Amino acid sequence: MRDEFGRTPEGHLSLGGLSAVELARTYGTPLYVLDGERLRANLEAYRQAFARHVPAGRPLYASKALCTLATCRIAHDHGFGLDVASGGEIHTALRAGVPARALYFHGNNKTPDELVLALEVGVGRIVVDNADELDLLESLATRLGRPVDIWLRVTPGIEPHTHRAIQTGGVDTKFGFGIPDGAAEQAVRRALQMRNVRLWGFHSHIGSQILELEPFALNARTVVAFAARIRAEMGYTAVEVNLGGGLGIRYTSSDRPPSIEAYVRTVAEAVQQACDAHGFPLPALFVEPGRSIVGPAGVTLYTVGAVKRIPGVRTYVAVDGGMYENPRPALYGARYEAALADRPDDLPTQVVALAGRCCESGDVLIWEAHLPTLRPGDVVAVFATGAYTYSMASNYNRFPRPAMVLAEKGRARLIVRRETYEDLVRCDVPLDD
Amino acid sequence: MRDEFGRTPEGHLSLGGLSAVELARTYGTPLYVLDGERLRANLEAYRQAFARHVPAGRPLYASKALCTLATCRIAHDHGFGLDVASGGEIHTALRAGVPARALYFHGNNKTPDELVLALEVGVGRIVVDNADELDLLESLATRLGRPVDIWLRVTPGIEPHTHRAIQTGGVDTKFGFGIPDGAAEQAVRRALQMRNVRLWGFHSHIGSQILELEPFALNARTVVAFAARIRAEMGYTAVEVNLGGGLGIRYTSSDRPPSIEAYVRTVAEAVQQACDAHGFPLPALFVEPGRSIVGPAGVTLYTVGAVKRIPGVRTYVAVDGGMYENPRPALYGARYEAALADRPDDLPTQVVALAGRCCESGDVLIWEAHLPTLRPGDVVAVFATGAYTYSMASNYNRFPRPAMVLAEKGRARLIVRRETYEDLVRCDVPLDD
Repeated sequence: MRDEFGRTPEGHLSLGGLSAVELARTYGTPLYVLDGERLRANLEAYRQAFARHVPAGRPLYASKALCTLATCRIAHDHGFGLDVASGGEIHTALRAGVPARALYFHGNNKTPDELVLALEVGVGRIVVDNADELDLLESLATRLGRPVDIWLRVTPGIEPHTHRAIQTGGVDTKFGFGIPDGAAEQAVRRALQMRNVRLWGFHSHIGSQILELEPFALNARTVVAFAARIRAEMGYTAVEVNLGGGLGIRYTSSDRPPSIEAYVRTVAEAVQQACDAHGFPLPALFVEPGRSIVGPAGVTLYTVGAVKRIPGVRTYVAVDGGMYENPRPALYGARYEAALADRPDDLPTQVVALAGRCCESGDVLIWEAHLPTLRPGDVVAVFATGAYTYSMASNYNRFPRPAMVLAEKGRARLIVRRETYEDLVRCDVPLDD
Repeated sequence: MRDEFGRTPEGHLSLGGLSAVELARTYGTPLYVLDGERLRANLEAYRQAFARHVPAGRPLYASKALCTLATCRIAHDHGFGLDVASGGEIHTALRAGVPARALYFHGNNKTPDELVLALEVGVGRIVVDNADELDLLESLATRLGRPVDIWLRVTPGIEPHTHRAIQTGGVDTKFGFGIPDGAAEQAVRRALQMRNVRLWGFHSHIGSQILELEPFALNARTVVAFAARIRAEMGYTAVEVNLGGGLGIRYTSSDRPPSIEAYVRTVAEAVQQACDAHGFPLPALFVEPGRSIVGPAGVTLYTVGAVKRIPGVRTYVAVDGGMYENPRPALYGARYEAALADRPDDLPTQVVALAGRCCESGDVLIWEAHLPTLRPGDVVAVFATGAYTYSMASNYNRFPRPAMVLAEKGRARLIVRRETYEDLVRCDVPLDD
């Protein structure tokens, strides 16, 4: 039984002090629920760990994990800057009231329009990914008459254990300037010669859903060693280092992620030790957690529609969501755990496939869900769904995307309304003849 | 060189008689382009093959492949019924002016609200997937005082060669009533006892992107044999048979799909022969093509942003789209081919990875694209993208979904407008404190 959430007096799963069954009844299903208390606890864990271990720097919320007006606002209220990956994320953050200077703009292929937007509103840093972008930025900054503050994204050549699709630190990646092949060094030379580009330091991200600490320490040592070499060769001293994100979470009970405190301490100590070893002045430190903040705070509630027993083969339990609102199982073979919302502590009596309702055989949310006996109408909760679900949701089969509720201290607030059928045809233009 | 599309006098790729370069300039990129002439040719190929080989019946457009007001309208104008998989697809089809009787409603977990909608508007058939749904339909039909016309979806136990996620005819599937385990027979008995359910026949779909004809013939024989057995045992004669969809298309030059004519002929002959063999009266025949209609008619246009050469490893060419607007490579390892829009016949000089711009290493549209030398600003066309791209598109990284243009006979019409940044926050509810 997953025990990270409490129980109501009736024994229901409790999210933010509210019965999951009641939330489903009030807002309908499928429903994304964010437990505000856990969300804020995760944000505070980063903030406090930074206060303890990091003399200068800041955590940045990786908004791509879950970018809504509410989550951008809350992350900033807890002292976070925001890692944004598109003009759309910049727009959302600004509309949420986050100041542009708190935004750090990422992407392997920012468009000219997006870069102009970023320059005009004045984001904090642009994380430059490649030589074409560096040249473009210099010319845009010159044309607009305002210098641009950048980091260079470097690729350290580190391969942590994670799904290939979300592993980005290796040599063969679309992201960043390689350290091993000299591209990173060349980019620094180029940036330092530019008139309207101000280089503040380096960024390096090694991957996602990493459950060990050592790859993070290795990344820190690699980047500091690179910065020290650049200093020795060119006399340029990076004053900021961003080590990206990647801290994993507990999707299933067999996942054992390090704590946020241990992660920040490990990274901070690795930077400190590498600086000592190289005689390099300690830079301001940034990290970009997303999944580890919103992921564990999220639970998706579904209503069971049909139960199909195929003797000797499998039992399929169909719920009213699926790959359109959580594509991670279909994309990555991601695993989740589920419980009954009204009887979360009932012992499992069966192993079933929790199927989505998209017209596609692969649309199964959990292939082996351990659950008690259930019937159509039961509400099922799937855990750890706060990150990369709504943010990756589609309208496949023209299903409306679900609503999202922030539940905390016994109060529920709608933070994303459910799409309507009329929303689905909003961009369609009828044929005029 | 892909030769299914023509060339403009300047040698540009021509789509519906228009230069792909001009389309990109006028409508921006990424841009979905539907070649109206190819789209209509594919629809006509089905219609004519049905006229030749099928005494009674109708092809149904599988709208989930690409469900817009325009495509629903056009498919119906060419004599098709519509296979719809949700309330949202029903809504879209009705708004497009398709009569409810031309809709055939699918899904392994239709919600009560969707079934009520389907009954109230009066869809042509509801394709019943499971016993829970059958019971629910009988009670809803009784409550609403209108009988419901259904097919039963049966699962034949056939496994064609295709990606596991889009293979649905086997025994271990969330879809339908199994023939091998007796569930289908039991469902017929149940349906025949119901007062407000009218059973017209059977539906069976074996999978998607199938490049051989034999599995379709086998499916036809299996379903007719089942219908004949039911007739012998229960005296019930199915008068309609729907054999689903699944005809594959040429994604890459190595794909050799059968023609639409050969597919329809094969299915029709298999049904006829099986009926003869069993002495079963020839039922009306339905099929549900989607991909083979819109897939080959679609081309996605992108602008190149950055070119990154990693010596001895790979060259990444980043374009302004990615997994948010075409998730098939990330989901299924789907393969595509590309060409330069202004020089489609230039010989390839390099093998590059055509990378999307989502913040995810796995976001690569084509891992091995054979292309001439290219530069930022070049327009790249990716072929055979008409099906399951826009319909599966998300706002991952808060990228707005692209526009779609119907190009035919030298005229372009916007059929889906591009999303704006403001569209992205449309459903977001700001925190009120």
